[in-house]
Amino acid sequence: MREELERRIDQALGRTRADLVVKGGRFLNVATGELAKSDIAVCGDRIVGTYDDYDGETVVDAHGLIAVPGFVDTHVHCESTLVTPEEFDRCVLPRGTTTAICDPHEICNVLGTAGLDYFLEASGNLAMDLRVQLSSCVPATGLETSGARLDAADLHRYRDHPRTLGLAEFMNFPGVLAKDPEVLDKLAAFQGRHIDGHSPLVTGRELNAYLSCGIRNCHETTSIEEAREKLRKGMQVLIRDGSVSKDVQALAPVIDAVTAPFLGFCTDDRNPLDIAEEGHLDHLIRRSIALGAPVDAVYRAATWSAARGFGLNDRGLLAPGYRADIVLLEDLEDCRVAGVIRNGRRVGPETFAGRPTVRPVGLGSVKLEPVGAEVFRVPAAGPGGPVIGILPGKILTEHLTMSLPYRNGERLPDPEADVLKVCVLARHGINRNVGRGFVRGFGLRSGALASSVGHDSHNVAVVGASDADMAVAVNRLIELQGGFVAVRDGVVVAELPLPVAGLISDRAFEEVEHALSGLRAAVRGMGCTLAEPFLQLAFLPLPVIPHLKITDLGLVDVDRFELIAA
Amino acid sequence: MREELERRIDQALGRTRADLVVKGGRFLNVATGELAKSDIAVCGDRIVGTYDDYDGETVVDAHGLIAVPGFVDTHVHCESTLVTPEEFDRCVLPRGTTTAICDPHEICNVLGTAGLDYFLEASGNLAMDLRVQLSSCVPATGLETSGARLDAADLHRYRDHPRTLGLAEFMNFPGVLAKDPEVLDKLAAFQGRHIDGHSPLVTGRELNAYLSCGIRNCHETTSIEEAREKLRKGMQVLIRDGSVSKDVQALAPVIDAVTAPFLGFCTDDRNPLDIAEEGHLDHLIRRSIALGAPVDAVYRAATWSAARGFGLNDRGLLAPGYRADIVLLEDLEDCRVAGVIRNGRRVGPETFAGRPTVRPVGLGSVKLEPVGAEVFRVPAAGPGGPVIGILPGKILTEHLTMSLPYRNGERLPDPEADVLKVCVLARHGINRNVGRGFVRGFGLRSGALASSVGHDSHNVAVVGASDADMAVAVNRLIELQGGFVAVRDGVVVAELPLPVAGLISDRAFEEVEHALSGLRAAVRGMGCTLAEPFLQLAFLPLPVIPHLKITDLGLVDVDRFELIAA
Repeated sequence: MREELERRIDQALGRTRADLVVKGGRFLNVATGELAKSDIAVCGDRIVGTYDDYDGETVVDAHGLIAVPGFVDTHVHCESTLVTPEEFDRCVLPRGTTTAICDPHEICNVLGTAGLDYFLEASGNLAMDLRVQLSSCVPATGLETSGARLDAADLHRYRDHPRTLGLAEFMNFPGVLAKDPEVLDKLAAFQGRHIDGHSPLVTGRELNAYLSCGIRNCHETTSIEEAREKLRKGMQVLIRDGSVSKDVQALAPVIDAVTAPFLGFCTDDRNPLDIAEEGHLDHLIRRSIALGAPVDAVYRAATWSAARGFGLNDRGLLAPGYRADIVLLEDLEDCRVAGVIRNGRRVGPETFAGRPTVRPVGLGSVKLEPVGAEVFRVPAAGPGGPVIGILPGKILTEHLTMSLPYRNGERLPDPEADVLKVCVLARHGINRNVGRGFVRGFGLRSGALASSVGHDSHNVAVVGASDADMAVAVNRLIELQGGFVAVRDGVVVAELPLPVAGLISDRAFEEVEHALSGLRAAVRGMGCTLAEPFLQLAFLPLPVIPHLKITDLGLVDVDRFELIAA
Repeated sequence: MREELERRIDQALGRTRADLVVKGGRFLNVATGELAKSDIAVCGDRIVGTYDDYDGETVVDAHGLIAVPGFVDTHVHCESTLVTPEEFDRCVLPRGTTTAICDPHEICNVLGTAGLDYFLEASGNLAMDLRVQLSSCVPATGLETSGARLDAADLHRYRDHPRTLGLAEFMNFPGVLAKDPEVLDKLAAFQGRHIDGHSPLVTGRELNAYLSCGIRNCHETTSIEEAREKLRKGMQVLIRDGSVSKDVQALAPVIDAVTAPFLGFCTDDRNPLDIAEEGHLDHLIRRSIALGAPVDAVYRAATWSAARGFGLNDRGLLAPGYRADIVLLEDLEDCRVAGVIRNGRRVGPETFAGRPTVRPVGLGSVKLEPVGAEVFRVPAAGPGGPVIGILPGKILTEHLTMSLPYRNGERLPDPEADVLKVCVLARHGINRNVGRGFVRGFGLRSGALASSVGHDSHNVAVVGASDADMAVAVNRLIELQGGFVAVRDGVVVAELPLPVAGLISDRAFEEVEHALSGLRAAVRGMGCTLAEPFLQLAFLPLPVIPHLKITDLGLVDVDRFELIAA
């Protein structure tokens, strides 16, 4: 280390050439909000010189470009990109996301600590800095059947791992308010450490109680009023724009010089197709600015504030001593990325060529026997009852009460009124539960969609206008051992295999993007009106998001946190 | 801990009464800059409720008052208050300073690790939170004789002590730039940890090199231009107002919403007389606002920004989950403190009554034989030569060249021209060095002042118009085993004994304040024009502050970092 400090001093002073110099451009100083004309000298993985001219062994020509610090994705489930950590790295780093804080919550719900080990091991090989939070709510609730459990002792064993920063999103806020002993044991084990929050629509004294346990941020904030209360209560608001939940539009007005240190951005769940078409954090930055947020506040939130909120004090500024994570932009307002430097090295195809890869885990995780159409029947006392109401682009749902066609003691779907059947089949080999219900808002007139991604226990979720098509879809999923399947008139019309724990593809992100594109076209052809039908389906089983959800145990009234009859 | 979380949840929800409620007042939300009308509920040492009404077992009536977070003094040498850590606590906590980050650099220069142990042990007993940084530059330079050395291995042993945050002010910036191996070993041992800076007037590539070693803040910034450069380079600027160095006047214009997260306040060296007359951090806040700095930015800098800059993530906001360090103000602009709550408990005389105290160390540390007047003679080749120019209220000095009276091969003082003799006598029993020189700016026409406080090696510094009075002053200091002494016409006219390491009184801070008042009056009666003559004297031996200083080895040209002839 002393030799490294000697090199830095010599290069900073200009006694020797810097290892790399970003030359001839400008940079946005997120500490002061100023645009500066200056070279940026880099020694090893550190910036060693700004506000001066430098010579370098390697020179990156930045004429006409503006440098900003690397972006920090403060909350992401890599599994939701549907690709391995290695492919996630190759997909988002070239877009400027040099640091991501992930929660391997999805794979842990399927595989337990084996999923955590997979991410921790894989993260060590990446070009980007991927930090792995410890999934706090596996299973998320007792109202579903997950593939594994992580208890306080399991999490405690990983607490000091160098690639973790603390406890991942603490979703079980009802458990906190109810003083559930298991919940409090987990929180107690991380007092004085970092604990990520998740508290959609939690307000008033309930929010106070949640925060009193040392929880510090929230990425589930969807309105200005909610953001204002959380900021007033010292919470870092992590503004999210994923593939389903899109909060930038609502929250951009909250971004200013005063609030910026208490903000951050995150993608949470964002798939490769959206990353290709819109972008990753670059998209959130671009959108925020387009919506009128001050440019310097937006970049501060996306870099320094995000890093500081997670104790990553070595990054987020272009200044001597800071980590050389640098994004070169053609345009600041439009956040057009022209190049990325990570840890002092230019990012290019060769960056990803030589990395060791980790063997995929969780192959053969869809432990279901083939099903017949009869498994989806919904016996009921009458036509009236609950229906889940989809809110396009939100994972929040409405709790509707509707009268449906009723024959032979069964409630039936009503595709003409946009009401389909939705079922969740336990797939972890623990039991053979099937939860059954109805959902409004998909727009399908016929056919079925099935997914082995079903937050957060990742049982098989299937939605359809006909029981027969639902059976075909589920049976194809079993053959694929996970994925997305679209069926019409008894025929599989599009699919994406996800064999790694039933969540992740073993292919390149471009292949996944292509398959998603095919799925999208097929499902649109079936009349679906949703932009992201598979993601909306995948979030229907998530019983920590209000208001009405469905798990393998049945319909869940999230507000009362209990099961109700279909 | 689980039980404590259960209590917090119940009190936050209002299921049970809070332990303590600050009721009926308003508070300044430093996260949003808003004034809020709200109770503040406290459970144990944590805030558990804001923006609501609460009932409490103990109710603090805050009608007409405004609550703000406890103030954080980001850099202080407690020794410079001239009182023990216990008395420092009793002196500053009731003024709102709930956290202080001290550097026991002075006592370590006299006693080595025994001084560090004394502060670490004492800090554990205090009502305030006193964090003890590890003194990085003992001795500060090789151009003086200190009582002890702390090397990289010594510091490394303390690195994980729970009451330390990292390495204290890294004063030896010439050593950094010169790649001194001992200096770099210390920095290398703390990479990835917190390292405090000290870089007066360091600029350009030299500042880049200094920062490249992971140094993160500076409390030695004295001008707007200097502050702007440091902020641009990502440095946290800790705005200081001590008893000698007063930088708030110059730096207040730099405080705004954008810069506030990168600022903090500190007192560095502030004695009990100034604390009584002006205040502690409350004074710096009041002055900054009076000078036009935005109120919310000033309080953010003094609380949240200060805490975050040092990784103290549990404090600095009045919000649920945060430490209940609360200052109640009668007036926000004028920062008039009406009451303090620390760790959830009201601060009053009883707060300080029951604390265990630590036995003072370093008694008998002035290891000098009585001297005669002849020891102060300055043989020289001619009348011309260097003279230290005092800058009132600054520890920076001018490097003057003057012609002085010259007789019998000796340069002589010229009190009519305000030039006195200044000498430094080694007092650690290691050698008998005496450094000799001249100084302009004290205003004394006769007599002498002596001090066993002489930064940073704390040899005996004496300034005088007559060699005979200088000898009387030094000999009285030896009898007292440390302190401040003023002599006129051979008679001691005022004194303050400082028997603990020759730096600290063993008495109550009020007694020290009284003695300082007497010394000030006496020295003014001797014609002295300086507001703080003993402090200006005590900083003359400090060879890390430009431009001309004096140690037991002689005059030091700080810019060239070498000894020069008197």
